[in-house]
Amino acid sequence: MLRTPVIEVADGLWLKLELLQHSGSFKVRGAFNRMLSAGELPGSGVIAASGGNHGLAVAFAARALGTRAEIFVPEVTSPVKVAGLAALGAHITQTGAIYSEAAEAAAKRAAESGALMVHAYDQPEVVAGQGTTGLELMEQTGGVDTVLAAVGGGGFAAGITVGTAAVIGARSGTAADRAASVADGTAAGITVGAAGGGGPKIVAVEPERIPTLHAARRAGEPVPVEVSGVAADALGASRIGGLAFEILSGDRVESVLVTDEAIVAARRTLWERHRVAAEHSGAAAYAALLSGVYTPAPGERVAVVVCGSNTDPATLTTD
Amino acid sequence: MLRTPVIEVADGLWLKLELLQHSGSFKVRGAFNRMLSAGELPGSGVIAASGGNHGLAVAFAARALGTRAEIFVPEVTSPVKVAGLAALGAHITQTGAIYSEAAEAAAKRAAESGALMVHAYDQPEVVAGQGTTGLELMEQTGGVDTVLAAVGGGGFAAGITVGTAAVIGARSGTAADRAASVADGTAAGITVGAAGGGGPKIVAVEPERIPTLHAARRAGEPVPVEVSGVAADALGASRIGGLAFEILSGDRVESVLVTDEAIVAARRTLWERHRVAAEHSGAAAYAALLSGVYTPAPGERVAVVVCGSNTDPATLTTD
Repeated sequence: MLRTPVIEVADGLWLKLELLQHSGSFKVRGAFNRMLSAGELPGSGVIAASGGNHGLAVAFAARALGTRAEIFVPEVTSPVKVAGLAALGAHITQTGAIYSEAAEAAAKRAAESGALMVHAYDQPEVVAGQGTTGLELMEQTGGVDTVLAAVGGGGFAAGITVGTAAVIGARSGTAADRAASVADGTAAGITVGAAGGGGPKIVAVEPERIPTLHAARRAGEPVPVEVSGVAADALGASRIGGLAFEILSGDRVESVLVTDEAIVAARRTLWERHRVAAEHSGAAAYAALLSGVYTPAPGERVAVVVCGSNTDPATLTTD
Repeated sequence: MLRTPVIEVADGLWLKLELLQHSGSFKVRGAFNRMLSAGELPGSGVIAASGGNHGLAVAFAARALGTRAEIFVPEVTSPVKVAGLAALGAHITQTGAIYSEAAEAAAKRAAESGALMVHAYDQPEVVAGQGTTGLELMEQTGGVDTVLAAVGGGGFAAGITVGTAAVIGARSGTAADRAASVADGTAAGITVGAAGGGGPKIVAVEPERIPTLHAARRAGEPVPVEVSGVAADALGASRIGGLAFEILSGDRVESVLVTDEAIVAARRTLWERHRVAAEHSGAAAYAALLSGVYTPAPGERVAVVVCGSNTDPATLTTD
């Protein structure tokens, strides 16, 4: 696991460059934690369904741990990500129009093979693993008032919600120690369910064309939504995870929507102004800030997590 | 000035991500230091000649300080960099086949206009400013045995040589304080000429098609070389700077050459493995490591400075 850097791009505004993480996104944090928490892995290895980044992460972690990875990806997945999976030695099945269909096929296959399912977002070990991002950024920035993070299935924003709350509690060791300990399967001591109490505001940012959290908050429970738009290959869950919904229903969490146009503009600005080469999903959180959907108060200390970079760089200046 | 991050990509191997610096390269450090050290700036502002990155940096610093910038660039300069200069409001003159011809034209113009010349590498304030990169990386890594840095005119590698030596001396304040103080024109207390004594080994990396330091070491003085190859738009000085030659002749400095093929491969690897989008010059130092031209001893702690990102990202996977 990399302790990914932060850069302070303006007074009180940090970018957490989680896109520089191994396998190009935060997803390895949850993948390692799930696999290491399981004890001995089955001979059939691990299995996952993924729009791409989670699959890359599971394949990366499986290779690191010397086990087999079988990854189911929907047809919407970008060729860059499929090529990356193949390079990591994963066994790939591309099936279904969107993530949820690939996930069904993977679940069926897991029941047959006995492989360990590593869910893309809806498992406590996965949510806790992603949460180490929040621990790290609180230490690196000296603490912020607000964290903006993207939502697909919600595991990342939920993890950050509990991970930043964990900082408030009395714990031993530095955040760096805790973050490192995720490699021992302990998920840095993050407890899913610890989202209450103190901690920064979490702004959960969704593309308006994939409003899983927004729709769930309105309905009072996770409900299916239509999936489309520029970030569908990474944020394309068709409903929010149950765990994530529970955590992201807390008082500290604000839910906002951004347009595809705002995401494209934010991605271009990240490149042109900061030389940060993000994929669309990775730029979604920054889009909320840049477009004014979320406007910090004077003096508010804000961290924006740029969470993925598995993109064709040729599109950074043309999309 | 940004305190650019480092990432530890393997045990004891750091990348200093100086390519995330304002204006896309380390050059703003020297530009700010030269301009702020000058006291009141002339009404005609500042002038510089540059293959591109130095020009962008001077234009950036001039805009930040509210003065006029006139930049002379050779015809080899990439369209990305010319567009960047225009966006920063600089007055641009594109003239001469290579850097040295543009520099002559700029010197002539400066004599007429009275503008402050900000040299791309051969001024003490510029060398000292670049050296803050070395101060920072020593603090961020906890100290390394070896730093790999690219050489064009040599100001950057020379600055890092004195900047890392400065860490050894007894100074007040943290390296962060000293690095920040460059904005006050003090260049973080770095003294050009302080390159002797302790400090890490500096591996000065040049493209074999622009061997300014290599040729100067052989001749015993700066001599002109042919300029060509993939990194010519940023490392295309036709002779090493006098100051840089003096500093880079020290015992701590090892001079190595890399092929264009090694640079291209390193640039691609930086993107594919680490999601770092460097220009060719920015990948040159890493090329020395990746190609085996420089091989660290077991346990040697190494920092590689990735120093520029002003590139067309479409070429990251195609060149």
